[in-house]
Amino acid sequence: MALFTVRVFVTLKPSVFDPQGRTIVESLHGMGYPAVADVRQGKYFEVQVDAADTAGAETLVREVSGKLLANPVIESFRIEAPAPVA
Amino acid sequence: MALFTVRVFVTLKPSVFDPQGRTIVESLHGMGYPAVADVRQGKYFEVQVDAADTAGAETLVREVSGKLLANPVIESFRIEAPAPVA
Repeated sequence: MALFTVRVFVTLKPSVFDPQGRTIVESLHGMGYPAVADVRQGKYFEVQVDAADTAGAETLVREVSGKLLANPVIESFRIEAPAPVA
Repeated sequence: MALFTVRVFVTLKPSVFDPQGRTIVESLHGMGYPAVADVRQGKYFEVQVDAADTAGAETLVREVSGKLLANPVIESFRIEAPAPVA
């Protein structure tokens, strides 16, 4: 077994209104940044797992992402390829 | 001018304890995933900006990240290269 780090990105589905993102845009406009057109905020996780290989790490993280890290009703997630921890 | 999307990743500095990440690890262990060794949670932004070129987009997003998206006391951020919006 070895330790792998997997990055997970959780974002609201495009059809879901993002009030936090909207608030950030308005704040930035108020701070003098009119060139900011849109902001979508999401969650980012660095997950370290023990696994036999990268495929095993990816399968595990995909499963825990779908069960806990992302809310499947309003969010979608994508993961990057696992990287071995040096 | 053109519209660019820039991805921003905000994470807690390594020295900062991550209670949310710790809670997620314990929940996953309770759900039957002992192979999860550690979880660090951060914020992820997709920022769309109007800019003359990619360098301008990157400079602008780096500035707003340091001023609003990340708390410089406890967080650090990194940004990906701007991508033109199709």
